[in-house]
Amino acid sequence: MLMLHHPTMLDNEEFVLEAYPRELTQNPLKKIWMPCRNGHIAQRRVCMTNCPTLIVTVGLPARGKTYIAKKLTRYLNWIGVPTKEFNVGQYRRECLKIYKSFEFFRPDNNEGLKIRRQCATSALNDVREYLRVEGGQVAVFDATNTTRERREDIMKFAEQNSFRVCSRPQHSLFPKHPNSLFLSNQVFFVESVCEDPDVIAQNIVQVKLGNPDYIHCNSEEAIEDFMKRIKCYESSYQPLEETLDRDLSYIKIMDVGRRYLVNRVVDHIQSRIVYYLMNIHITPRSIYLCRHGESDLNIKGRIGGDSALSARGKEFAKRLGKFIEEQDIKELKVWTSQMKRTIQTAEGIGVPYEQWKALNEIDAGVCEEMMYEEIQENYPLEFAMRDQDKYRYRYPKGESYEDLVQRLEPVIMELERQENVLVVCHQAVMRCLLAYFLDKTADELPYLNCPLHTVLKLTPVAYGCKVESVYLSVDAVNTHRDRPENVNVQRSTEDALQTVPDHY
Amino acid sequence: MLMLHHPTMLDNEEFVLEAYPRELTQNPLKKIWMPCRNGHIAQRRVCMTNCPTLIVTVGLPARGKTYIAKKLTRYLNWIGVPTKEFNVGQYRRECLKIYKSFEFFRPDNNEGLKIRRQCATSALNDVREYLRVEGGQVAVFDATNTTRERREDIMKFAEQNSFRVCSRPQHSLFPKHPNSLFLSNQVFFVESVCEDPDVIAQNIVQVKLGNPDYIHCNSEEAIEDFMKRIKCYESSYQPLEETLDRDLSYIKIMDVGRRYLVNRVVDHIQSRIVYYLMNIHITPRSIYLCRHGESDLNIKGRIGGDSALSARGKEFAKRLGKFIEEQDIKELKVWTSQMKRTIQTAEGIGVPYEQWKALNEIDAGVCEEMMYEEIQENYPLEFAMRDQDKYRYRYPKGESYEDLVQRLEPVIMELERQENVLVVCHQAVMRCLLAYFLDKTADELPYLNCPLHTVLKLTPVAYGCKVESVYLSVDAVNTHRDRPENVNVQRSTEDALQTVPDHY
Repeated sequence: MLMLHHPTMLDNEEFVLEAYPRELTQNPLKKIWMPCRNGHIAQRRVCMTNCPTLIVTVGLPARGKTYIAKKLTRYLNWIGVPTKEFNVGQYRRECLKIYKSFEFFRPDNNEGLKIRRQCATSALNDVREYLRVEGGQVAVFDATNTTRERREDIMKFAEQNSFRVCSRPQHSLFPKHPNSLFLSNQVFFVESVCEDPDVIAQNIVQVKLGNPDYIHCNSEEAIEDFMKRIKCYESSYQPLEETLDRDLSYIKIMDVGRRYLVNRVVDHIQSRIVYYLMNIHITPRSIYLCRHGESDLNIKGRIGGDSALSARGKEFAKRLGKFIEEQDIKELKVWTSQMKRTIQTAEGIGVPYEQWKALNEIDAGVCEEMMYEEIQENYPLEFAMRDQDKYRYRYPKGESYEDLVQRLEPVIMELERQENVLVVCHQAVMRCLLAYFLDKTADELPYLNCPLHTVLKLTPVAYGCKVESVYLSVDAVNTHRDRPENVNVQRSTEDALQTVPDHY
Repeated sequence: MLMLHHPTMLDNEEFVLEAYPRELTQNPLKKIWMPCRNGHIAQRRVCMTNCPTLIVTVGLPARGKTYIAKKLTRYLNWIGVPTKEFNVGQYRRECLKIYKSFEFFRPDNNEGLKIRRQCATSALNDVREYLRVEGGQVAVFDATNTTRERREDIMKFAEQNSFRVCSRPQHSLFPKHPNSLFLSNQVFFVESVCEDPDVIAQNIVQVKLGNPDYIHCNSEEAIEDFMKRIKCYESSYQPLEETLDRDLSYIKIMDVGRRYLVNRVVDHIQSRIVYYLMNIHITPRSIYLCRHGESDLNIKGRIGGDSALSARGKEFAKRLGKFIEEQDIKELKVWTSQMKRTIQTAEGIGVPYEQWKALNEIDAGVCEEMMYEEIQENYPLEFAMRDQDKYRYRYPKGESYEDLVQRLEPVIMELERQENVLVVCHQAVMRCLLAYFLDKTADELPYLNCPLHTVLKLTPVAYGCKVESVYLSVDAVNTHRDRPENVNVQRSTEDALQTVPDHY
């Protein structure tokens, strides 16, 4: 997968050996022009992100490190950067099976120390595999890493296993220190510092009580043990520090996002990570997602277009208004696309709303306003290719789901910033948004079920999202087309239309 | 103008008094669906930015405050947020006419102090006018503001002249302190701290020597005086401070972007400002802009499409390769769109390149691949409307220049991050990029002259950009259509086609 707005750099070292200009061929799936090399299409390589990044969390227990690690991993995967988190606590649990008590974490418990070090090493070995062999671009190493010694070990590990595959060093903000830069710019530390006892207590209750370590305890015992566990780290904790750590790249998040210290951001991905981390918050809220009410083109089984609501669609808009009123949501913001059907739906609610062009439905290009039957008739090859790889398939003169995700990134960023929001959007758009919140893969995304006249209420809980689905009891056509069994370009029309939903 | 991805909120207070749902009409210029109110189209209001923001610089002289103020102003205007900078030094120069020496700035010069205070007050009065009467959304108050007292005065000014026009408070990250938030979230401080004598000396040479204050001095005298001027501020300088200023919203930029402290970012615009300031740098470099070589559709006088290069276009690609080679540019990156003609052009250079979908030419929707003559014939009203307001006009099922600027924002952000880059793009795209670098208005932007086969070399100097235009001596058709005199919807075909360039 590719990074936002940074599709690809075309080959590297061997570049100068070839004859230019090369012939171009259009990739039939993605509709991208690519040079041919001796008749073969040149290997495409991702550029902005082909320098793997190791993100390392830093902080005392219950400071939200795992929350940040998981959330960041989800975001990066969604925007197309293969990312995986490596939680050392998880390695410890797998190695130790049974957790007894905080005693394990005491600084004078040599046995404990040894096991914890082994677990960290195993995790780092897996990081290496992931970045060097499995094609990962970002690894998130989630542990306390509270001592400078520990962090130096990680830096050494990164240097020894140079993940760098770029032929040239990346752009540097600090050309004066090329050496230190070259050695360390693949590691980015994310420290969370928080002294607010309420926040820490809340974190323990919300996350740690459900932790397998405390499966056999009651809440009070678990809290007490966990507080002692924190104490085990406090005496040796060395926070990242302006002078001593001036050569490291890091963000220090203070008081749950009230304040940030950002040091030595050296590349595109680090800059994006910083921006994301500065926009997320943990204030409780819900996000409501739904599609527009049923439209005239929905009824006709036609995709795209900019038609008005059907009679049933208008009825849904009214019910949606009632539903929202009943929910009695504090300072709800309502967002629509710039298409008539979502705006008409929002009008039915009777509250102010904002229109986002970025929320417009996927552009089906030459297939706009066609029935699936017509697409099969006019563009059978296109139709089959879409079924083969629906996420990456780009309509001729239109968009792919992959394009859509890039277009929706600013919407996700602003959703992270906001509190209660209702997004009235479209089938493909809703699938993309939902995939972000529910951590779905690119393969699952285009098949997520988002029926008309149904509101999804998403509420953040612990590391994930609670989903409630509310059908507002107004009939609507089904617009969901599953992947047919036969996706071969030579399939019959019947096979191609196997999963097309009924319509008039 | 509208903010990036945040078109509009539709009315506010009077909202509940109306009957919903309202009828929708499509704005013929922008193709946006808008509700009608008693037959009139409801007033549209910008939402995310309708809470004016006062940005206040902080720092000793020669720390790049004016550089930041001007650059930020240019960026915000370009993305569609009306912004103006108010430089107190400029007010002082207008008031005093003749600058004698640093003595004016001595802390014990009461006359000087009085004049400086008057100038600051005049500037703030103009800020008020701008934000309350003239429709400004962001004012940048550019002065040293090195004492806490001075900054408190500015906060008081902002509170007394509450610029807020939102009916409800904005989203808050810190719901615990609603009052302090309400009073202060419209002010955002930008402090620049730098102790590197090289950087300070460079700033003085690059910017201050050209300053009207030193028009009658030689360089040495000017530098000496300016160093003394800095001294005048040093003793009383109170930098922004974690504890004392914990309730303020600010970014502290340290050592020209090596480190940042960010405190209490409370809304969308502040978040965007922080992201921007964290991505700019002052390393010398050049940005090269050009269009693809002449294409087959260019020759036919047809717009849009995805055609290949003409023979002359291929010749340009070759010459471009030679030109780039001769320039001998350190670590040049080459970016193209995903269209065949820019990729073919980059192939002619013979170096690696990256493809950006965001760099694709403006989508002319139903007019794609038409000649202007055909647009006039088939869509005379559309054609006239485009001439009336070319920046905001959106092609049916296509884009406007305004849309294009939003799409190009990530490109600009990454251009700010990078050093030497060649962007091979398209006429409308190049106009948008050029308008950013040269600070052109939305009215000027769509008429900027960007001929084929001509490279623009942009090099940052002082507060602006040096432009060198290099025609690579390969003939090409002219594709520039000026605004015709008659833009009336009832104009004759002849009037409409008055400025259409020649073609086959």
